[in-house]
Amino acid sequence: MRIDLNCDMGESFGTYTIGNDELVMPWITSANIACGFHGGDPMVMEHTVALAKKHRVAVGAHPGFPDLLGFGRRRLETFSGEIRSYMVYQMGALAAFAKAHGIRLQHVKPHGALYNLAAWDERTAREVVAAIRGFDPELILVTLAGSLCAELAVAAGLRVAREAFPDRAYQSDGQLAPRSLPGAVIHGPEEIRTRLVKLVASGVLTSVEGHDVRIQADTLCLHGDTPEAWKLARVIHETLLAAGAEVMPMAMICSG
Amino acid sequence: MRIDLNCDMGESFGTYTIGNDELVMPWITSANIACGFHGGDPMVMEHTVALAKKHRVAVGAHPGFPDLLGFGRRRLETFSGEIRSYMVYQMGALAAFAKAHGIRLQHVKPHGALYNLAAWDERTAREVVAAIRGFDPELILVTLAGSLCAELAVAAGLRVAREAFPDRAYQSDGQLAPRSLPGAVIHGPEEIRTRLVKLVASGVLTSVEGHDVRIQADTLCLHGDTPEAWKLARVIHETLLAAGAEVMPMAMICSG
Amino acid sequence: MRIDLNCDMGESFGTYTIGNDELVMPWITSANIACGFHGGDPMVMEHTVALAKKHRVAVGAHPGFPDLLGFGRRRLETFSGEIRSYMVYQMGALAAFAKAHGIRLQHVKPHGALYNLAAWDERTAREVVAAIRGFDPELILVTLAGSLCAELAVAAGLRVAREAFPDRAYQSDGQLAPRSLPGAVIHGPEEIRTRLVKLVASGVLTSVEGHDVRIQADTLCLHGDTPEAWKLARVIHETLLAAGAEVMPMAMICSG
Amino acid sequence: MRIDLNCDMGESFGTYTIGNDELVMPWITSANIACGFHGGDPMVMEHTVALAKKHRVAVGAHPGFPDLLGFGRRRLETFSGEIRSYMVYQMGALAAFAKAHGIRLQHVKPHGALYNLAAWDERTAREVVAAIRGFDPELILVTLAGSLCAELAVAAGLRVAREAFPDRAYQSDGQLAPRSLPGAVIHGPEEIRTRLVKLVASGVLTSVEGHDVRIQADTLCLHGDTPEAWKLARVIHETLLAAGAEVMPMAMICSG
Repeated sequence: MRIDLNCDMGESFGTYTIGNDELVMPWITSANIACGFHGGDPMVMEHTVALAKKHRVAVGAHPGFPDLLGFGRRRLETFSGEIRSYMVYQMGALAAFAKAHGIRLQHVKPHGALYNLAAWDERTAREVVAAIRGFDPELILVTLAGSLCAELAVAAGLRVAREAFPDRAYQSDGQLAPRSLPGAVIHGPEEIRTRLVKLVASGVLTSVEGHDVRIQADTLCLHGDTPEAWKLARVIHETLLAAGAEVMPMAMICSG
Repeated sequence: MRIDLNCDMGESFGTYTIGNDELVMPWITSANIACGFHGGDPMVMEHTVALAKKHRVAVGAHPGFPDLLGFGRRRLETFSGEIRSYMVYQMGALAAFAKAHGIRLQHVKPHGALYNLAAWDERTAREVVAAIRGFDPELILVTLAGSLCAELAVAAGLRVAREAFPDRAYQSDGQLAPRSLPGAVIHGPEEIRTRLVKLVASGVLTSVEGHDVRIQADTLCLHGDTPEAWKLARVIHETLLAAGAEVMPMAMICSG
Repeated sequence: MRIDLNCDMGESFGTYTIGNDELVMPWITSANIACGFHGGDPMVMEHTVALAKKHRVAVGAHPGFPDLLGFGRRRLETFSGEIRSYMVYQMGALAAFAKAHGIRLQHVKPHGALYNLAAWDERTAREVVAAIRGFDPELILVTLAGSLCAELAVAAGLRVAREAFPDRAYQSDGQLAPRSLPGAVIHGPEEIRTRLVKLVASGVLTSVEGHDVRIQADTLCLHGDTPEAWKLARVIHETLLAAGAEVMPMAMICSG
Repeated sequence: MRIDLNCDMGESFGTYTIGNDELVMPWITSANIACGFHGGDPMVMEHTVALAKKHRVAVGAHPGFPDLLGFGRRRLETFSGEIRSYMVYQMGALAAFAKAHGIRLQHVKPHGALYNLAAWDERTAREVVAAIRGFDPELILVTLAGSLCAELAVAAGLRVAREAFPDRAYQSDGQLAPRSLPGAVIHGPEEIRTRLVKLVASGVLTSVEGHDVRIQADTLCLHGDTPEAWKLARVIHETLLAAGAEVMPMAMICSG
């Protein structure tokens, strides 16, 4: 089993700090870097690209809705084409920093409300796919495993990294359990470790209903915005290795 | 004499409109497109790139300070490297729209306070030059003819388009007359026409002191933010042609 | 019949201009002044308050969602209490300019998506009402005639100005015809004039279905963002006077 | 000796957190609450006003330049009257939350670059004073002890709270030692304690040159943006009490 570990990075803004990128970066293989709309600013972006490069972590754009106050977590009504323009703008901005540092973007992962909307809203999914195809069709789209967005992207010839969440519970149909359900978010490192070992060994997770559910994932999402995030990142990374998985950037996993 | 005509374009923002890009675009050869910091937004940028392409006008980035309220006209104190990051971000964002529309950026022209600061402040000039070299050393830097920025850019191996202002008076030393002086801004199309004919015929303008002053310009700056701007753009374009000048994008003028 | 004429004012932002407040102000009796979230800025607000005072036009706050790019026309998902905080902030900011100019706020009219949401969404309506009660229960709330918001505000002891739209068609049930319907927006000044004469004479408008529909309005909404807006404002004002209506600020109409 | 302890509060923004207001609030007597320009947002402002009220801490407006990215720490070029408008807007917004919670603003303290500019730039100082006089002449202006701003405010009839900094070194002329000098910022709680005891006992501090320098202060500025800020706040508060000072809100110190 080959798997990528991705994490949102570079979400600080000016004097405001979110996350502890320095400590988390060593344990991941792909960094989703905020592009200044929901978080991040030009100085932070440049610093984060340099930090990822130093740790040989692959970089990707993490575009969001233009809503710093809401941290990109709330949907915005948009005109036709507007989401595509938002995506192109942000991918371009981040790609410029990568270029200035002599590296290339590996992937794109929409952020927050844009990620959720893209997963199941057809117009949004189509604009996300069109943006990537127009800007750089070599980029890998990170999206929810089994989503409409994944389907449309593959149909359009894009490479897709199917994403799973080690700290989230799944239903027997393979969908994420809604956050509103008790047990939807898994907090204990020990339980996460147990689930990961099973996932590596047999490709399944135990659903909230108690069944084995098959999870096809190319990349696992880590969260970087808690003080202890780096510890969990380390646990996950080491657990995967110990269980026999190979941890590597998604570009080495997702074929063209 | 070969000369380019550049104009600031795409400075509208959301519902807010500035300029009449549709009417001005046919009369220019290079469009400086705002990048979302002092003006412009992703939808406006995409639309403006498409409009320029339709009129075969070359496109360039028009990066400014992140100050929509001040329209990029006031200086911001910055940390070392901050201006470079601002530039890379904005060039990248605009280049992405160009790429999505199958064209390439031709040039970069800093906006407002950033333009003025870059002309004579060494740290700013060096960061502007470093940003272009890091992002895309093929880009032409549009800067004030005779400025420190022009000198540093040439020394760094960049192509430079020296800019002159047909509606601004010059001093006998070749510098722009400060706006605070009476007569610093030339309003009459007839006077502008007379000056342009002289410029094409003999490469000189009459200074405020009444002397001939040699102006070495690759591009002339038009203003697009008055209701009648397109008429003046047309007068200037037609006057240059009638006087025997060739009007063409700066990429055909500025050698590498 | 006594009626107020209200119009959105002060929506310019920095260098960006919307509307022609100088020309429209003489023909209205109440100005809804933008508060810096969807439009307006501190300089514009101060100038607009002074302009209204000069014309003896009553001033009101025109709070919106914090979304300059979308001009407050798109809904934002909010936390409980967030809309109330948005309202208190903006009313306070505008009231400060009124106070500095020796006048008082007369009213509050939510803007754009906030107006529409407040009309029928209970949580929003309750927060709008709570904000006014908390900040200044003397303020009149301008809201859609017949809306849930009007009902809740009256129940809470607030004064309400029921608003009607002379350039919008109504259905036989008294509701606005959706903009998506043909004929929903009435463009001709002549037709608007005819409808106003009938409204003043008999309190009814002809619905899109052709029936007489009773409209109980304390204030009519004018639009100020077209170049000819002031002409229509004048036509409406003069038509109302000629038809025998008294045109006056809503504070003289809406009893406590 | 009667002295106030003031601290900047409510500078968080959306998801971004600065400071630990909950822990610092119990140890201060006056809270300078950010107003949404350099930091703070409507939800944060409302929460902070409520928190201050709970701890019976007096509230004041902490207006800054509209520059979230720069956290209000960089000067903006402004038009005549613009700073006054910035001030009126922000004071009004915060006063509205105070009013909604049944309390009144006690004071105003400009933030960051605006504080520094107001101290010595006459145009800025005059606009700050004019803003307070226009909005609410009962408000106390917190400004640097011995500054031009203090002088102009007193001349205009405003109450002024002269501010000193327990963690900053002073020169023998009573001015703050520039931050660029070694020793300009005092980090050790023990040294701060020693200085405070001397200040209470004899009204003097030891200058960087080693002389006694008389400091006339009504309020001491604490910093709240470090993790341990609340501990230092407590040390300062307890040291002052132990040394025999009375610690109370500035309104009880600054006579009209």
